[in-house]
Amino acid sequence: MQCFEFIENEKLRKQIEFAVEIDKMKLVLRRNLVADGSKREDDAAHSWHLAIMAMILEEYSAEKIDVNRVIKIALVHDLVEVYAGDTFAYDSKGYEDKEQRERDAADKLFGMLEGEQSTEIRALWDEFEAVETAEAKYANAIDRIQPLLLNYLTNGHTWKLGNVSSAQVYKRMDIIRTATPELWGIVEGVIKDSLKKGLLKE
Amino acid sequence: MQCFEFIENEKLRKQIEFAVEIDKMKLVLRRNLVADGSKREDDAAHSWHLAIMAMILEEYSAEKIDVNRVIKIALVHDLVEVYAGDTFAYDSKGYEDKEQRERDAADKLFGMLEGEQSTEIRALWDEFEAVETAEAKYANAIDRIQPLLLNYLTNGHTWKLGNVSSAQVYKRMDIIRTATPELWGIVEGVIKDSLKKGLLKE
Repeated sequence: MQCFEFIENEKLRKQIEFAVEIDKMKLVLRRNLVADGSKREDDAAHSWHLAIMAMILEEYSAEKIDVNRVIKIALVHDLVEVYAGDTFAYDSKGYEDKEQRERDAADKLFGMLEGEQSTEIRALWDEFEAVETAEAKYANAIDRIQPLLLNYLTNGHTWKLGNVSSAQVYKRMDIIRTATPELWGIVEGVIKDSLKKGLLKE
Repeated sequence: MQCFEFIENEKLRKQIEFAVEIDKMKLVLRRNLVADGSKREDDAAHSWHLAIMAMILEEYSAEKIDVNRVIKIALVHDLVEVYAGDTFAYDSKGYEDKEQRERDAADKLFGMLEGEQSTEIRALWDEFEAVETAEAKYANAIDRIQPLLLNYLTNGHTWKLGNVSSAQVYKRMDIIRTATPELWGIVEGVIKDSLKKGLLKE
């Protein structure tokens, strides 16, 4: 990394180094394509999309939420992937060691920041992963529907890659049913139409 | 666009169509490269980076700010570019009609949403553009330092493209001096080193 030694304030220097390190999110490619199918989506763009969708769809959360915390969660929820890489949603093998790989990555990455700030960002990531608070449930629901839409719009691109069945998609989307029940109709509509068009296996 | 006619709730359908429309942010390429120089940065990834940097550097705002509003501003500040395109920071010709082009784009894009929500998002964009509130000043300062860092890390990529002088960069960075004075040392350090390395004209 280019040297930021000229920044005398050590806390600030670490913050700038962190900001530069997470630039790598722009290089972590997901399996799904962007909506027009022209390229794979990267983690930075995905996180932005998730944050803005969370902002727009707030009213559909079943529980009352602090949308500002959801937005922060969305911004950081995939950060560990700069070290741990993206694990394909329908790759059961990759999921075996995902937790440990990501926890190690979190220690390393969030450890670049100091004290309270390090703790705060780590806590947002932990919260998303635990899926216990209303905010985490809502964030996870939006994190499911965002790629569902992109897969639908790109002729089932990742579903075909993974030879995925409608039952697998229903299972993966399950949190939407409880966290954002009014969005469940979208899941059903997309899956029904995708089955009809042969984008998904029965 | 794929048809979302099966979504019976009209407001929700418009929100989903908006979420899909702004996916185009992932295709709007900026002049600057990502930190490792491997590709041009797109607007979606840039907006994510800006939002998270705004979150991390909050303490350096000269004025007290509501960082949650800054984050929302960061998420939407470049949305109009899905229609108006990105205007290169050092392209004075492109700036001539930038305002009108972007205002037309804002009418069209934010008009996809209904009532209060449309007004709220439009107001965030207007706020960023007006650079009057403490939040807008801080957001604009971070929006200057983010590409400064990327240019520095990629051997002055866009500065060389535009044959840019240090005086031009100082001018472009000026808001940092007042909005986030503790970050001004970074601007000075980067410009000084870039002059030494010949990344910038005197």
